Amino acid sequence: MGQVAWKALFLSLFDYKTEKYVIAKNKKVGVLYRVVQLSILAYLVGWVFVVKKGYQDTDTSLQSSVITKLKGVAFTNTSELGERIWDVADYVIPPQQGESVFFVMTNLIVTPNQRQAMCPEVGRTEPLDPQTPAKPGIRTDRGYFWSNKERKDERQSANIPDALCAKDTDCLEGEAVVAGNGVKTGRCLKDKGSTRGTCEILAWCPVEKRSKPKKPLLGSAENFTVYIKNSIRFPKFKFSKMNVLATDNESYLKTCRYSQEHPYCPIFVLGNIVRWAGGNFQEMASEGGVIGIQIEWNCDLDKAPSECNPHYSFSRLDNKSAETSISSGYNFRFAKYYRDAEGVDYRTLIKAYGIRFDVMVNGKAGKFNIIPTIINISSGLALMGAGAFFCDLVLLYLIKKSNFYRGKKYEEVKSSSRKSLSSPTLNGNQSPEQLGEL
Amino acid sequence: MGQVAWKALFLSLFDYKTEKYVIAKNKKVGVLYRVVQLSILAYLVGWVFVVKKGYQDTDTSLQSSVITKLKGVAFTNTSELGERIWDVADYVIPPQQGESVFFVMTNLIVTPNQRQAMCPEVGRTEPLDPQTPAKPGIRTDRGYFWSNKERKDERQSANIPDALCAKDTDCLEGEAVVAGNGVKTGRCLKDKGSTRGTCEILAWCPVEKRSKPKKPLLGSAENFTVYIKNSIRFPKFKFSKMNVLATDNESYLKTCRYSQEHPYCPIFVLGNIVRWAGGNFQEMASEGGVIGIQIEWNCDLDKAPSECNPHYSFSRLDNKSAETSISSGYNFRFAKYYRDAEGVDYRTLIKAYGIRFDVMVNGKAGKFNIIPTIINISSGLALMGAGAFFCDLVLLYLIKKSNFYRGKKYEEVKSSSRKSLSSPTLNGNQSPEQLGEL
Amino acid sequence: MGQVAWKALFLSLFDYKTEKYVIAKNKKVGVLYRVVQLSILAYLVGWVFVVKKGYQDTDTSLQSSVITKLKGVAFTNTSELGERIWDVADYVIPPQQGESVFFVMTNLIVTPNQRQAMCPEVGRTEPLDPQTPAKPGIRTDRGYFWSNKERKDERQSANIPDALCAKDTDCLEGEAVVAGNGVKTGRCLKDKGSTRGTCEILAWCPVEKRSKPKKPLLGSAENFTVYIKNSIRFPKFKFSKMNVLATDNESYLKTCRYSQEHPYCPIFVLGNIVRWAGGNFQEMASEGGVIGIQIEWNCDLDKAPSECNPHYSFSRLDNKSAETSISSGYNFRFAKYYRDAEGVDYRTLIKAYGIRFDVMVNGKAGKFNIIPTIINISSGLALMGAGAFFCDLVLLYLIKKSNFYRGKKYEEVKSSSRKSLSSPTLNGNQSPEQLGEL
Repeated sequence: MGQVAWKALFLSLFDYKTEKYVIAKNKKVGVLYRVVQLSILAYLVGWVFVVKKGYQDTDTSLQSSVITKLKGVAFTNTSELGERIWDVADYVIPPQQGESVFFVMTNLIVTPNQRQAMCPEVGRTEPLDPQTPAKPGIRTDRGYFWSNKERKDERQSANIPDALCAKDTDCLEGEAVVAGNGVKTGRCLKDKGSTRGTCEILAWCPVEKRSKPKKPLLGSAENFTVYIKNSIRFPKFKFSKMNVLATDNESYLKTCRYSQEHPYCPIFVLGNIVRWAGGNFQEMASEGGVIGIQIEWNCDLDKAPSECNPHYSFSRLDNKSAETSISSGYNFRFAKYYRDAEGVDYRTLIKAYGIRFDVMVNGKAGKFNIIPTIINISSGLALMGAGAFFCDLVLLYLIKKSNFYRGKKYEEVKSSSRKSLSSPTLNGNQSPEQLGEL
Repeated sequence: MGQVAWKALFLSLFDYKTEKYVIAKNKKVGVLYRVVQLSILAYLVGWVFVVKKGYQDTDTSLQSSVITKLKGVAFTNTSELGERIWDVADYVIPPQQGESVFFVMTNLIVTPNQRQAMCPEVGRTEPLDPQTPAKPGIRTDRGYFWSNKERKDERQSANIPDALCAKDTDCLEGEAVVAGNGVKTGRCLKDKGSTRGTCEILAWCPVEKRSKPKKPLLGSAENFTVYIKNSIRFPKFKFSKMNVLATDNESYLKTCRYSQEHPYCPIFVLGNIVRWAGGNFQEMASEGGVIGIQIEWNCDLDKAPSECNPHYSFSRLDNKSAETSISSGYNFRFAKYYRDAEGVDYRTLIKAYGIRFDVMVNGKAGKFNIIPTIINISSGLALMGAGAFFCDLVLLYLIKKSNFYRGKKYEEVKSSSRKSLSSPTLNGNQSPEQLGEL
Repeated sequence: MGQVAWKALFLSLFDYKTEKYVIAKNKKVGVLYRVVQLSILAYLVGWVFVVKKGYQDTDTSLQSSVITKLKGVAFTNTSELGERIWDVADYVIPPQQGESVFFVMTNLIVTPNQRQAMCPEVGRTEPLDPQTPAKPGIRTDRGYFWSNKERKDERQSANIPDALCAKDTDCLEGEAVVAGNGVKTGRCLKDKGSTRGTCEILAWCPVEKRSKPKKPLLGSAENFTVYIKNSIRFPKFKFSKMNVLATDNESYLKTCRYSQEHPYCPIFVLGNIVRWAGGNFQEMASEGGVIGIQIEWNCDLDKAPSECNPHYSFSRLDNKSAETSISSGYNFRFAKYYRDAEGVDYRTLIKAYGIRFDVMVNGKAGKFNIIPTIINISSGLALMGAGAFFCDLVLLYLIKKSNFYRGKKYEEVKSSSRKSLSSPTLNGNQSPEQLGEL
């Protein structure tokens, strides 16, 4: 018997087995099923294939290299600086724009001629700074044109709580001032007659004034231009391209400016970038900020390479929450070090406010490939199965004659001692055997 | 006939066709199948939907911008430097922390007043350095408090194999010293009576001493704090957030420190970061190292935005393998350039040891979406199919009455000249026709 | 009745329902089906499992930290500079190689002793530069050994269109020169007798010459070596490794150079990197460029950790399109600031040409996991369904006896007032009832 079974099994290997179907002449469910099928088909074709390009193999691991180059000259004429020119080497920090980030200094607080010395933590710096040379590079006394905000700043800075003192013992020697500029020397400096003073500290003296010019010093940076060169490569498809038009018209690349009209010009005006990012340049210039320049490459490599073009978008990355001053703007400090004739170091401390531009490149390329096509189709068919399953439920349990259909769909078989008979289930059908027994 | 077929085909378009099932009253297999179904269901619901949130569309392409700001002052009092203050502008290199990396210098070897000149490749630098000014910015002669390790270093450096020589011809003129500081001039400098010496080189002289202070000069950097501002955006869902609490209590943000108790405070103490990363600050401070600060955003946007919070984790990125000195620690060299009265450049070379902090932001957001839901469900149904397939095998080939069921499941049809008859297969059923012939 | 139905439903819960199949003894379709099945099986096993390792859970979110360190000394002996040594601190800008990018300066245009002053926008700078000290750090007058290309450059620069003028009114005072170095003072400087001249500008004077040495000044950078230390971590699998062999043979790591023979040596010769990237070092050195160093980690964590090794590849990221000079090469400007005895700032402007190396680390690790295994298998089974669907179409509509099989496959059921009878459809079978009526 087992042997027969195996024989049958082998023979049946090349028989084609196909499910037996019951045709339920029930238009309601029939239509329902067709609707389900059609909607699945629509989803598969319309969404998966047309919209999502499900027939394509995609490469999202983009190799990108960004080179940026700024152009522009700013002219400032302030009472302290006199006439001064700022060029690229002055306002781009650090000079190299590797890693697709560049920073443009638009406002600054300069504290010249700082030396290691002792001075009060806050205020009253001038008297303590005799050796400021006759022609100081830059002076920071801007008291007379402060905005209200800055006055607030000043008041804030004026009381670094930890630096206030009434007597020397309040200034524990050697202790660093919290959020301050140095370590306490142990002396409490007071104005005549006043009861409260500030601790003397060992630090780079004079300490920095906490007020910055209201209107950005380099506001004219709004007109600077940046040339962004971005070459990308999709390793999987060995496809590389560049955001610079392969045009022989060189003068175009020298003179054009990116805009709606010139979507493929790689030269941008800083002011426009900020505006497109929804910011106000003058405002950002004075407080500092971070702007993201997204370059998106969405390439359908089944089309011509010329169809694969970058799409630029701009957004402000530091969501300026003006209310919490602690988390608004962008600035950092750096110093230029000099050495005088006696070999003593002194420095010019610069607190630079400005706009940092992060160029982020991302993208994906698609190319026809059989594997994803098959997978999507088969997943679609699996969906069809789901649809059928759903319609079965309706047919077998929800409609009026459901149990009749149930009987038809499910053929009950029982194995008994006598050679098996297939007794039809609930639907009062008679079996051939029964007929035979008449 | 063909026409009839087509007609039937068309008519049958709106018939509902459903597989015919054979009910095998075999509880064993029945239960088995239910178990399989339930486990698949459990997997689908429990794992795919609850754990993996399979009903959500996810966005992993996070836009992030990081701004870091260090605070802290270090006070050093060494025999060479005297009392000196180090502030942010001194120990943060480069000053800007763009691209979410910042480096804190914690230890350094200073070689002041280097000039383009000729000097021996190794050792004995002082005598050759007459023009060190009276008050040298910093001097590096720390011979008297070297650790053993440094003595070893010193010995190592003492014999740059390529710089050793017995006679002038060993120092090929114009040849660069391998792993050295300059090019050979062709002269071999020897101490009196000694047979072996070192080549003279053209270089920035004096060359750097290879010994660094055992205990980190800026060990107090352990108490420095860094304020990390990270604002993110999930473009697909147009959702942006910031790691800084939107609190109006500003003083909290000024005074808080990140810890288990304050998981949403954006201010970190360097010492803690290193400790959490499993490092020893003082040790790292002297050797240098790299610490990774991971900020993870896992947001379920079906919940309230306030539920979407960053999670910080810290790890040491340069796995310090102390045994191979070549691959431990982190340091680099830079120079400050000065020009003396005669317009000759000289420089102060600084080999900076310190800790580099890489802030890495990643995350993903999920939001309910119908597409992935459907796909996951249908893939689950496909699994059901797999289960049924498996149970069929059991029913048809493994259990005792398998071939009976096989007979029931598979209805054999043969087409013959006479109008086709469906002769039931192995189970000796009689066909209606046969009955009719009685 | 409904109650009966529910009872039956409950009873049938533990019956095993299996599709009823029709065995079509049609070898053609049978073989076709087997072929389809086998090919799907082959695809599933061969491609999905063996090639794509579909049984593995993969982690592509690699944590990586790169530390690079350059070694090498360059010796230049030019008529202007005399003998000069360039070491790491001189040619690596910025000094720190954070973020896995490093730049090696290979060529430069130096404009020494620039001061804020007035000078013509183009050419004729010397006469206007009296205060150049006796021993100028570096001079850039290289007119006598220009290549043709540079002559072209020079001519280009010679006519910044916006700086040309015939009379003073052509130089609008305070207007910045487009693509120039300063703002116009309102005077037009002309050589005697010539009708055309150039506007005078307020700028850092003298302005930079636009000509650079034909042969790279630091061409010997070709022999410099860079030590790249890359430690990675796959967080999902808690697996970390380093590209530096865990060898105790330290001297090997000091002396080896990466090559086909030494694939795991972490020290690279710059010249080789450029050559492997398909570039010409001397050419790139003079124009500048960007090289990508990809480090690929493809780890099968089911194997031994020692099998998980990095694979290096090199490519040129700035696709040099020599024709458009605007988009070729890589350079940037920076300045060294000095202060003279009177406290006046002056600077040395350096336009640095060089090679930027971007180290990009990516990789993925795979480890056996049950979930993806199941998913892949079930998707394969879904494919089987697709195959069967396709064969059905053949059987039912394409072969000769198709409509016979259609009749067998589809059992039509109609529910009527009298107890339902299953009238076989197209195949002229007689139904039991009909027999009964004899």
